[in-house]
Amino acid sequence: MKILVNGQLVERNEASIDVEDRGYQFGDGIYEVIRVYKGILFGLREHAERLFRSAAEIGISLPFSLEDLEWDLQKLVQENAVSDGAVYIQTTRGVAPRKHQYEAGLEPQTTAYTFSVKKPEQEQAYGVSAITDEDLRWLRCDIKSLNLLYNVMAKQKAYEAGAFEGILIRDGIVTEGTSSNVYAVLNGTVRTHPANRMILNGITRKNILDLIVKNGIELDEKPVTEEELRQADEIFISSTTAEIISVVTLDGKSVGSGVPGPVTKQLQAAFQECIQQAARVSF
Amino acid sequence: MKILVNGQLVERNEASIDVEDRGYQFGDGIYEVIRVYKGILFGLREHAERLFRSAAEIGISLPFSLEDLEWDLQKLVQENAVSDGAVYIQTTRGVAPRKHQYEAGLEPQTTAYTFSVKKPEQEQAYGVSAITDEDLRWLRCDIKSLNLLYNVMAKQKAYEAGAFEGILIRDGIVTEGTSSNVYAVLNGTVRTHPANRMILNGITRKNILDLIVKNGIELDEKPVTEEELRQADEIFISSTTAEIISVVTLDGKSVGSGVPGPVTKQLQAAFQECIQQAARVSF
Repeated sequence: MKILVNGQLVERNEASIDVEDRGYQFGDGIYEVIRVYKGILFGLREHAERLFRSAAEIGISLPFSLEDLEWDLQKLVQENAVSDGAVYIQTTRGVAPRKHQYEAGLEPQTTAYTFSVKKPEQEQAYGVSAITDEDLRWLRCDIKSLNLLYNVMAKQKAYEAGAFEGILIRDGIVTEGTSSNVYAVLNGTVRTHPANRMILNGITRKNILDLIVKNGIELDEKPVTEEELRQADEIFISSTTAEIISVVTLDGKSVGSGVPGPVTKQLQAAFQECIQQAARVSF
Repeated sequence: MKILVNGQLVERNEASIDVEDRGYQFGDGIYEVIRVYKGILFGLREHAERLFRSAAEIGISLPFSLEDLEWDLQKLVQENAVSDGAVYIQTTRGVAPRKHQYEAGLEPQTTAYTFSVKKPEQEQAYGVSAITDEDLRWLRCDIKSLNLLYNVMAKQKAYEAGAFEGILIRDGIVTEGTSSNVYAVLNGTVRTHPANRMILNGITRKNILDLIVKNGIELDEKPVTEEELRQADEIFISSTTAEIISVVTLDGKSVGSGVPGPVTKQLQAAFQECIQQAARVSF
């Protein structure tokens, strides 16, 4: 298994991080997870662009071009002979004696590796349970940063409660899941939090919003209140690895009829078609 | 130079971190910085206890006792022959394939090293400038975690503005600095944010509150509003490495008379006495 370290492919066990890497001491870095279907990096351009955006937001100047990055990740996937799986990539600000502020001239540290992904077919077919939780995260959730401790804590809480996801609520408003975007179907309209600083604007989210419009479904990027969430006809979540999964139980109570609803199923089918198209186009 | 890795002293260049250490990928860990004066770890017990508290808050069970930790850190300081300096220690949840939730049985990774500290004598004598900034951090600032990206961003902003510190304000209320606690003197009373989830309860802060009471100065742990901060007679900040430093310029305007005020100076003197006492007691 090879890992990409600052543009070089090395053996996994040769890759190591310095204790004074700012990623290790401050979470001072950014990341992406990119799904691989049939050897093709799905939405590679969008993920690469978002990595650059996140870097810019925290003042990291990436020492490679968008094209170099794409090339390197494709090389990594090929080298590791990944068919169905994913790439994890992160870049930190660099290695320096610890102090909060940083000097110019640090060398960002980029590592990327591949891993296998089990498509959550059961979850997609039958739906999952979720619990609600307070959103105590920082107010720059639009940056895909390595500061994920609250996401970890809330995901763990959900996991220990036997739930698949924790849905976060801030000031009575549904923001997103601990590692997913959240949607509610209310009277035939799909509602989801607008892409601002309170949520991460998922690549899968963007694809879904396109599919909603293309399929003639009503869309409203307007925050869902906690009360509306509890009365929704359907709830679903999305992420790079989950794709689209129906939430059929919320805090122990059935959502709608308690099975994946028609809008969710329509979008799931449309999304699978997207994936297949992407694979076809690339060959 | 030796570094402590999971209880073992190794050469600095032999210490390396795995790419899948959860500290590196999620900032899933906690830390402490402990000042060393004349070879003595100042406030060691309080720092060690706080590390245990932070760990417990995020569900990390530290694989050593308080006494073992203290012993190891003292050994590290002795081995590196540190007279005036500091110890940085962090513990992460462990190494595991990346996913937000964690399984039981992970082995926490602890690293600690020493570094030199230049006592900020000029800053303590003449005061520093600060700027105000929005507090966009998460709502568990009481946990001394590795999720420090916003602190980094705000400190950098202050640094680039030529200021020593950024003072954070949330909803019109002064919380703390990017790496310090903040105090305002208003009509002879020292005011500072109470120790709740909005601030890190500094060890130096606790020492200062004791000194305020012992010196017969009025103390009120009541939040300072932004307006009050701008009208304060004196402002000072504290941290393990800064000790007590007067803020004499705020957002470009003089604080009080524009020089370190009498209350700040009294507390600075009392704090230096504390340090000297600690060193004397230990020998």
